[in-house]
Amino acid sequence: MKQDTICALATPPGGAIAIVRVSGPDAITVTEKIFSKSLEKAKGYTLHFGQVTDGEGKELDEVLVSLFRAPHSYTGEDSTEISCHGSAYIVQRLLESLIKNGARQAEPGEYTMRAFMNGKLDLSQAEAVADLISSSTQATHQMAMNQLRGQFSKELAELRGQLLQLTSLLELELDFNDQDVEFANREQLTSLMEKVEKHISGLADSFQTGNAIKNGIPVAIIGAPNVGKSTLLNALVGEERAIVSNIQGTTRDLIEDTIQIDGITFRFIDTAGIRKTQDQLEQMGIERSIQAAEKAKVILFLTEKNQPFPDIEFRDDQVVLQVINKCDLSLPSSSYLYHREPEGRLFHISAANGDGIELLRQALVRESAMPMTLDTTNTVVTNVRHYNALKQSIDALQRAKQAFESGIPTDLVAEDLRQCLHYLGEITGSEITSDDILQNIFHTFCIGK
Amino acid sequence: MKQDTICALATPPGGAIAIVRVSGPDAITVTEKIFSKSLEKAKGYTLHFGQVTDGEGKELDEVLVSLFRAPHSYTGEDSTEISCHGSAYIVQRLLESLIKNGARQAEPGEYTMRAFMNGKLDLSQAEAVADLISSSTQATHQMAMNQLRGQFSKELAELRGQLLQLTSLLELELDFNDQDVEFANREQLTSLMEKVEKHISGLADSFQTGNAIKNGIPVAIIGAPNVGKSTLLNALVGEERAIVSNIQGTTRDLIEDTIQIDGITFRFIDTAGIRKTQDQLEQMGIERSIQAAEKAKVILFLTEKNQPFPDIEFRDDQVVLQVINKCDLSLPSSSYLYHREPEGRLFHISAANGDGIELLRQALVRESAMPMTLDTTNTVVTNVRHYNALKQSIDALQRAKQAFESGIPTDLVAEDLRQCLHYLGEITGSEITSDDILQNIFHTFCIGK
Repeated sequence: MKQDTICALATPPGGAIAIVRVSGPDAITVTEKIFSKSLEKAKGYTLHFGQVTDGEGKELDEVLVSLFRAPHSYTGEDSTEISCHGSAYIVQRLLESLIKNGARQAEPGEYTMRAFMNGKLDLSQAEAVADLISSSTQATHQMAMNQLRGQFSKELAELRGQLLQLTSLLELELDFNDQDVEFANREQLTSLMEKVEKHISGLADSFQTGNAIKNGIPVAIIGAPNVGKSTLLNALVGEERAIVSNIQGTTRDLIEDTIQIDGITFRFIDTAGIRKTQDQLEQMGIERSIQAAEKAKVILFLTEKNQPFPDIEFRDDQVVLQVINKCDLSLPSSSYLYHREPEGRLFHISAANGDGIELLRQALVRESAMPMTLDTTNTVVTNVRHYNALKQSIDALQRAKQAFESGIPTDLVAEDLRQCLHYLGEITGSEITSDDILQNIFHTFCIGK
Repeated sequence: MKQDTICALATPPGGAIAIVRVSGPDAITVTEKIFSKSLEKAKGYTLHFGQVTDGEGKELDEVLVSLFRAPHSYTGEDSTEISCHGSAYIVQRLLESLIKNGARQAEPGEYTMRAFMNGKLDLSQAEAVADLISSSTQATHQMAMNQLRGQFSKELAELRGQLLQLTSLLELELDFNDQDVEFANREQLTSLMEKVEKHISGLADSFQTGNAIKNGIPVAIIGAPNVGKSTLLNALVGEERAIVSNIQGTTRDLIEDTIQIDGITFRFIDTAGIRKTQDQLEQMGIERSIQAAEKAKVILFLTEKNQPFPDIEFRDDQVVLQVINKCDLSLPSSSYLYHREPEGRLFHISAANGDGIELLRQALVRESAMPMTLDTTNTVVTNVRHYNALKQSIDALQRAKQAFESGIPTDLVAEDLRQCLHYLGEITGSEITSDDILQNIFHTFCIGK
């Protein structure tokens, strides 16, 4: 497939420096047309200082051009990166000028898609680029780096190798079927299938952790109206909120009310106050909160001093931290009893003045039981597309195993194994032919990557 | 002055690529310490692909390092630019890693300050860098480019040359004073002083235009309550507003309600509705609006169909555009007469449905009488610091002229001329010794520039 030449801004507007990337067969000649120096004989991996002109030959800026020659570039194509002053006007005119001279505006993720097309990265590595860019904690960074470096790809390649071995053993048997020969030791085959299934299941299971690390552990603050849910959220967020807000999502929308404590991301689910009410509208809001709370892994169950906790049942796999707010106020004491919770899960705080908040933050980290740093040798699946492919490959493998055990003809078993291979291959892109799937993947990237 | 090595992020967070700049005597060795390749023998203007590690030796990212050797760099020092993935986590750890290895976080504008210190730029050129980065229209871009390329500096150098000639002629006379010799032709001297004064005054006068282009032409929308002032503002802003909001100021806060029409920036001044009222509080608000309107260059004087315009006097140098809103409504006609205004200054619009808005936008551009494109040969002063220095130099020159004409001893005249020289020298920094002034100038820059 012959590619055209694309250009895009790769940095957000508003900084000191902006980078405009150009890639494709004409990248160097297009850049040269608007640049004050000849690049024809320039070697790859060199920098060139000079002036760029706008589409009308007027000087636009002093820039640095980085030059790369195929295949030694990110995309594998001839490429330039123009580092100019970060003015919106300059960037706009510079892009116009490149487009006038033969480039076109790149689609989101098109650079990485080209890198994939040109064999510089497999598909799961390409997806790791987007994850790496949006990583904001050590754990998300580590997961993306592992994936980018090809750890997951290598594991998948091994699994595919084992499955291919299985399939060829079965097919060999198939070829000699009329001679009633059994090349494959049936027990050995079953055990190999089980081993592969266990490995794939382990990867699929890691998605729960991976997803929580990537998107945050869902936390619900539940309590009666006016017990201080919002104040508690603000107190927990503290200065962190501003930091989080600065980090713009590159491949997804900014999630509000997400905070990081000790490198772990917590995602707060908004809930309305819970109390017994005759008001139908309020009742609906309360039901919605209870539903929202059901999705939470951690519940901050809030009441205020001398008030009972609402009568709500939580799931056994949810961590419930009982929090008594407004402990700084001198309220008349009462005889209400608090629910009994395991030691260390009852907290007396004042969200308003910050008393006890630090202990609660520590408890969130402790009770969420998330690894603060990931073992660099463990693959953790973080991508829902990968997870779905793994699940489908497990289904296919289980069908194969069942068919094999029930003595169904070997060619049908082999067909199921090929299905399993296919789904694993989808993850790294070695088996993907559909342009739609590629478009879907790369369109979640940011422009310029 | 021995400089240390500084580092900073030069791009905003949230993009595909981030650039971390390192500059100073140890820039290359500090970079090398965290980079997977040796840079010791690398030539300037080369690019290096490799891995960077965090402070603890763990791999952080795959990066491109641009390398520059003194004096051939922006700052004039050894420098590197590390182009990494635009993740907040990566950037944070990368900076930490550089700092652990001997760099320190740069102050705002410190790179450009070093460029100035090392003679790569004079002070007015350095200030042009900040203006260039924040330029968002062709006119602001053109002004900043002219200044960056040294056009203003050259003009100031010529003026200083003429003043130095004047001073030396006077001082020569002074040396021979007791011999009653007159070396300088007095008429010629006066004429030279007048010529210089005229030139400086011309520059100072250009500030009004420069400031309007840079900060926007002040526009007030004046009218009775509920005639549709906010609706008109929204209609005028239209899609432009989103564009403007995307451009974050790099050296100043984002100004709200600033729009660009045909490359000219208009800055809308908020005003309360104006009507006769007994309410003291409302009266105060109205007085404030009238005061605000006094600062405006353009007044959009708004009423609605069949309502009179409020009785307000405007200054002769203000452009008043009379606007009759809600023309889409079928209101009973009345016999109110509108103020008479020069042709083309009365508009019938509907802010709600957009009727007549385009004509009004065109009128704003036409009546503001701002050049849409600047002559590249004309210097326009845009910086209030430069303007103040020019004004002070004019004062000193006028004192000199007066003293000279009234026969005051030549040494006093020469002293005034030296004052004038000093103020002109402040603009390009050739006469600045105060660190405070430099700090003030560069602290308005963004970090990483």
